[in-house]
Amino acid sequence: MAHGDGLDPVQVRGGLKTISMGLLSQDPDKAIVWRGPLKHAAIKQFLGDVNWGDLDYMVIDLPPGTGDEPLSVANLIRNVDGAVIVTTPQGVALLDSRKAVNFSRLLKIPVLGIVENMSGLICPRCGERIDLFKVGGGERAARELGVPFLGRVPIEPRIVDWCDTGRPFVSDGHDSPAKGAFLKLTERVVEALARK
Amino acid sequence: MAHGDGLDPVQVRGGLKTISMGLLSQDPDKAIVWRGPLKHAAIKQFLGDVNWGDLDYMVIDLPPGTGDEPLSVANLIRNVDGAVIVTTPQGVALLDSRKAVNFSRLLKIPVLGIVENMSGLICPRCGERIDLFKVGGGERAARELGVPFLGRVPIEPRIVDWCDTGRPFVSDGHDSPAKGAFLKLTERVVEALARK
Repeated sequence: MAHGDGLDPVQVRGGLKTISMGLLSQDPDKAIVWRGPLKHAAIKQFLGDVNWGDLDYMVIDLPPGTGDEPLSVANLIRNVDGAVIVTTPQGVALLDSRKAVNFSRLLKIPVLGIVENMSGLICPRCGERIDLFKVGGGERAARELGVPFLGRVPIEPRIVDWCDTGRPFVSDGHDSPAKGAFLKLTERVVEALARK
Repeated sequence: MAHGDGLDPVQVRGGLKTISMGLLSQDPDKAIVWRGPLKHAAIKQFLGDVNWGDLDYMVIDLPPGTGDEPLSVANLIRNVDGAVIVTTPQGVALLDSRKAVNFSRLLKIPVLGIVENMSGLICPRCGERIDLFKVGGGERAARELGVPFLGRVPIEPRIVDWCDTGRPFVSDGHDSPAKGAFLKLTERVVEALARK
């Protein structure tokens, strides 16, 4: 909702608010064909012209890579509290997360830690663990680069469903390995920020 | 290898040649912190200053999204033969691939088709099919948008290994569902290009 005093974010649940380009577009299929300067302007507006109110935390979800979007965020927010780097466990993805750690250091953003996502899967039929993209690479990279390891989040097919239907799987009643991993890594991030 | 006459690409196997920023960097962990204009200059160099020789096909692998990189390619190459759009099957990813189809149309690039990647997995222990990210969404999107559907590529954990160790799984001796799917979709792309 846009009005004279800026943009109101979407209220998701409890105190959670969100904004994204996708929410502003009338046609969900329309491609937003923007080069960096326009993206920079949009990020600036999302930070400055949205009525966020009093926030405990602001989380900015960025695309992979070390290009325009993270650079704009680092330029627009002085003293970013920290970066959480999300990787899958295989070698090729780890190369990119190592670059992300060095990117953060270059911009003087503290690295809160590395999360290993898509870290294994339990077969819903036989209960066997399948290491789809190998396992443990995120932890090894964290150790080698001297940054905290925040935990492994396994794949759960029902989470795909929940994400597609807009249900936040961490606040729903079900227990699951991914939910447990998520809550634990959130605690670690909160603790790291409290120590600052 | 760089010399007075430009850059020589890396010879992979047979007639396959490749170049990427990662191959030019001395330190694999170093982040390349570039905004769009520098990326544009690099793409231009990769097209113009690399000794490609006589090529049958040039494949440009682009990051997700409709930003600087695909725009630069579309600006630098007149009459791109076509775009292959790769998606995972879940709803959230499909939103992005629908945007990619519209992006291609906007830039007058023919859409050769949609590939559904990570389309299910066979449990290595019990042989049961697990639809990790649902299945069939790519085909549905292709039908709705009126573009060809090129096929489904299942997940195979050993392909992760092969990619990490630089072995092209389509030319190795093993038979596998992913290899079969890949060869079939390549044929469809070659046929679509021959019809042009």
